[in-house]
Amino acid sequence: MESPSDSPKILKARVWTMSKRFVGIPEKSDFHIIVERIPALKTGEYLAKAVYISIDPHIRAITDELPVGSAIPGIQIASVVESLNEKFPVGAYVHGAFGWRTLTVDKGQTRSVPTYVLPDYLNDKSMEVSYGLSLLGVPGLAAYFGLTEVLKPRRGETLVVSSVAGGVGNFAAQIAKKILGCNVIGITSRDNKAKWCKDRGGIDQTISYMDQDVVEQLNKFAPEGVDYYFDTVGGDIANSVLSCMNDNGKIAQCGAISGYCNDVPAHLNQLEIIEKELKVEGFQVTRWKDRWFEAIDQLYSYHVGKRMSTYPPVYAAGFESIPDEFIRLFRSFNVGKVVVIVPSNVL
Amino acid sequence: MESPSDSPKILKARVWTMSKRFVGIPEKSDFHIIVERIPALKTGEYLAKAVYISIDPHIRAITDELPVGSAIPGIQIASVVESLNEKFPVGAYVHGAFGWRTLTVDKGQTRSVPTYVLPDYLNDKSMEVSYGLSLLGVPGLAAYFGLTEVLKPRRGETLVVSSVAGGVGNFAAQIAKKILGCNVIGITSRDNKAKWCKDRGGIDQTISYMDQDVVEQLNKFAPEGVDYYFDTVGGDIANSVLSCMNDNGKIAQCGAISGYCNDVPAHLNQLEIIEKELKVEGFQVTRWKDRWFEAIDQLYSYHVGKRMSTYPPVYAAGFESIPDEFIRLFRSFNVGKVVVIVPSNVL
Repeated sequence: MESPSDSPKILKARVWTMSKRFVGIPEKSDFHIIVERIPALKTGEYLAKAVYISIDPHIRAITDELPVGSAIPGIQIASVVESLNEKFPVGAYVHGAFGWRTLTVDKGQTRSVPTYVLPDYLNDKSMEVSYGLSLLGVPGLAAYFGLTEVLKPRRGETLVVSSVAGGVGNFAAQIAKKILGCNVIGITSRDNKAKWCKDRGGIDQTISYMDQDVVEQLNKFAPEGVDYYFDTVGGDIANSVLSCMNDNGKIAQCGAISGYCNDVPAHLNQLEIIEKELKVEGFQVTRWKDRWFEAIDQLYSYHVGKRMSTYPPVYAAGFESIPDEFIRLFRSFNVGKVVVIVPSNVL
Repeated sequence: MESPSDSPKILKARVWTMSKRFVGIPEKSDFHIIVERIPALKTGEYLAKAVYISIDPHIRAITDELPVGSAIPGIQIASVVESLNEKFPVGAYVHGAFGWRTLTVDKGQTRSVPTYVLPDYLNDKSMEVSYGLSLLGVPGLAAYFGLTEVLKPRRGETLVVSSVAGGVGNFAAQIAKKILGCNVIGITSRDNKAKWCKDRGGIDQTISYMDQDVVEQLNKFAPEGVDYYFDTVGGDIANSVLSCMNDNGKIAQCGAISGYCNDVPAHLNQLEIIEKELKVEGFQVTRWKDRWFEAIDQLYSYHVGKRMSTYPPVYAAGFESIPDEFIRLFRSFNVGKVVVIVPSNVL
């Protein structure tokens, strides 16, 4: 274990903050980097250097409740570079909600999500550590728990996934189809993203809502109606799916990106809920935080057993690029889970 | 049993129809009475004469899906005046979804709701038969099943009921408070209706949304947050309640009257659903149709045991007045369950 006295250099963290109240889709000028001096470690603390930072749409919803000037929250995988905490030894890779920042002094406490050293198969690089922010992190966990704990679909039933080319949606669609045996229909914005889903994940029943009528296509793929809906989008698309659902259908409400940049959040049609006696359940993966490692092991076994297609996150380079990547999430251009690589020389 | 040949007179039914597509709150001129000749009964049929017709807001939502010229649907209690069906003998009172009409030839089949001879304690007038459209009919059943099967609140927890002076809401509030032991807060439009709830049903924590700020009052009555919401209103009021709910709260979606007369139905904020991990369940009482008599007996026992305040429906006189009473539902003036009395000389 290194002692802080071994490093006489003054360390500074770079931290992305919200310099203005976001209006609609944020603009680059709404973000500002501040520099924070890193104090010497105290007993129980360790210093974590960001390696990958996750770019998540729901952060936009959270920022509405933060004061201007706040550091932007977010999850990262960081490397422990100094430590006075034996549970977080130097060289280990750590998952934590440290925010959009380069260096973090931490005690290993649970923040908005659990802080932990990555499982062995990530830490020893049997699988690249960035998977700890995609299949083996919150996106994979959201897909897994949303299906196995919220929707619990039966084999052969019809399940729709929105944002099927997105970080959560593609895993949800694959688990539903390949592990749980559902008839899966995915909704995405554009044809090229539908093609990506087919090529990457074998999801071939897709609807491109910018080019196709969602209800018409759902009626084609699901003439007997939709039983389950895994929703990360909300709003108009969600209500189109609701209009095609069967009585007693169930909706797992994982996200509602369509409204994150609007003054009025995404809303769900109450008349459909009543007339079809639907069940809607909002969820966050932190509900099952005591079972995260069990679920991560399960998702890893799907990967090792080739039971689903896995692929690395989409990498964007550079700490400075985080706001651009975040803004892009709301322009419907991305496929897969986006993580920003923080170059090792950035401090 | 009378045979149709005993009644040589030609019988005609009067039937309220939708003569125009409703736009917003219906107008009197949107309704039109047609006259239908009643054919001679065939084996298995009986002739039912309307005694009380239930005036229900959700009919407005249904009419959007009916062709212009359709008979208006609705539930009534009718007296059997001729019969070739021994299960429906002359003199019995029948509950059935016969619509807004004076005479009906029926076979006792289930329509949108079950068709049945009223329980003995209504048929023998131990309790006035009109209770079969209020406490001992769909409104009471909706309150009962919505609480005991959907929300299942625990004693001491906080439950909000919207439209607490309405046909369903007042029973729901009373059952939640007096039978299930919840801390109950009722929302209604005006102070006079709040007073009615206090006088009639002992519900004294009420919010009059036309005079008071719903969120402010909820914070006052429920400083530790709302656990359950029995909703018949939807829209803005529902979303105000959601903003005061605790994590993992539950909403029983029984109705959404606030949107029935709008082009866009009432909608529920998906961001609240996600961030608080709420469960929303739409329901209709027909889900438990095999258990209606068990529930009606239970509700009757609450009445006999004086475990809650019961009171007759609000009576409006005259078959011709049905559209006026229906329109009034959307003006927020009513208290209690409204039924129209069809005078015995109307054929």
